[in-house]
Amino acid sequence: MIVDLNGKQIESEAARLDPSDRGFTLGDGLFETIRVKSGKPKRLEAHLARLRAGAKVLAMTVPTTDKGIAKRVDSVVSANGLTDAAVRLTLSRGPGARGLLPPEADAPTLLITATPLPPPPEAARAIIAYSTRRNEQSPLAKIKSLSYLDNIIARQEAAGYGANEALLLNTQGRLAEATIANLFLLIDGLLVTPSVEEGALPGVVRAELIAKFRAEEGRLEVNDLGRGEEAFLTNALGVRPLIEVAGQPIGDGQPGLVTQMLAARL
Amino acid sequence: MIVDLNGKQIESEAARLDPSDRGFTLGDGLFETIRVKSGKPKRLEAHLARLRAGAKVLAMTVPTTDKGIAKRVDSVVSANGLTDAAVRLTLSRGPGARGLLPPEADAPTLLITATPLPPPPEAARAIIAYSTRRNEQSPLAKIKSLSYLDNIIARQEAAGYGANEALLLNTQGRLAEATIANLFLLIDGLLVTPSVEEGALPGVVRAELIAKFRAEEGRLEVNDLGRGEEAFLTNALGVRPLIEVAGQPIGDGQPGLVTQMLAARL
Repeated sequence: MIVDLNGKQIESEAARLDPSDRGFTLGDGLFETIRVKSGKPKRLEAHLARLRAGAKVLAMTVPTTDKGIAKRVDSVVSANGLTDAAVRLTLSRGPGARGLLPPEADAPTLLITATPLPPPPEAARAIIAYSTRRNEQSPLAKIKSLSYLDNIIARQEAAGYGANEALLLNTQGRLAEATIANLFLLIDGLLVTPSVEEGALPGVVRAELIAKFRAEEGRLEVNDLGRGEEAFLTNALGVRPLIEVAGQPIGDGQPGLVTQMLAARL
Repeated sequence: MIVDLNGKQIESEAARLDPSDRGFTLGDGLFETIRVKSGKPKRLEAHLARLRAGAKVLAMTVPTTDKGIAKRVDSVVSANGLTDAAVRLTLSRGPGARGLLPPEADAPTLLITATPLPPPPEAARAIIAYSTRRNEQSPLAKIKSLSYLDNIIARQEAAGYGANEALLLNTQGRLAEATIANLFLLIDGLLVTPSVEEGALPGVVRAELIAKFRAEEGRLEVNDLGRGEEAFLTNALGVRPLIEVAGQPIGDGQPGLVTQMLAARL
């Protein structure tokens, strides 16, 4: 696999990260996952806008222009002979000495990788994570940061129960999101999704559903799952039916019609 | 600087981390900071016990025995010609493909670095962080994980106000800890510290104060700071006076007697 590390293409086996990189030592950075379809990155502008918004929260430098990043993405995708791919941008604060305060002049690390687009995942049968909560009171809930361990813990908990996803509650006990996706419910014919204030990551496909399909943001309690005619999860790679939560079916326990139409379209 | 990477000593400039290391891509790992005094690591047993407790929470492998780690620590310290040092163990889950679930057989990365012991820091003048909250409802609050970005954000906020530390509140608005240290108050002649349930990291020096000086764990409200005759912060490197919070002095605004005695002793 060929990766782009700070603007240079290199075989991943030969790519070297400095062990003092704050991405490694402190989870100090951001990432984006971007779907590439027929050679074209989808919603690249929205992804890069979110990356820059995150960098602003962290007072981090993005080392190049959006155009520069777009060019690197294209090159890595074609260098790997891919046309449909999942691209990951990883931006860390770069090397740093001991201590939490970033160095005055940061030298960020920007890694771009491209892997073949995975097949659409099975419909989700989720648990509700008991192991941890999404901290909607942290700015990290609004950015896609490298400090991602809470979501890993929830995903491991799901695996322990033989489920393939976990829904995270916020610190108030309301629904926030899934471990790698936003949550949508169809209730009374309307799409609803937890608001960003509730701890939902502002996903790019989520934003599109709000803009184009008038999905509403709000507060969702766990028992609102029982009112869902359909449910699905969204992330940059697509729309995934959510057919069961904690052993109970959503609607009739089959991917719903609206879900299927959106999955085909987005 | 010579580091130990997976049991091999190497110049840090030559050390190479795999860009797919989950420590880098997902903050998936743990760390410990250990004080070395006159060539001897202090409280090493307690640090390694906490590392193993964290690894258990994350279902991660610790790649060698405590004895093996102790040996590596000693070697790195002497290879760098140090007798008083700050050693950092960084244990990550190692390389992984896309996705949150760890690989079935993990190949953890264990990095050991040793740097000269920094001079004792100035007395702390802290803010109360408004930017973020400590999530006491996450198991991450109880382990020293690589997903450390909330604390960085709070430390940056402090720097923005010209302060040198930040106190983090938990999601209920009570005192939890500082960004790299535990918090103690002396109230009515008794030492008190936020309990682990309140979001305090179970620090090794903190544990010693509880065991040897009958410090009490409990719930501390922000306005309990006004009752503090003295206050101080503890971490593996020592005891640091806390003389001011949000512009208001603690006690008479000078390092207190108890604080100074503990700083000299621990």
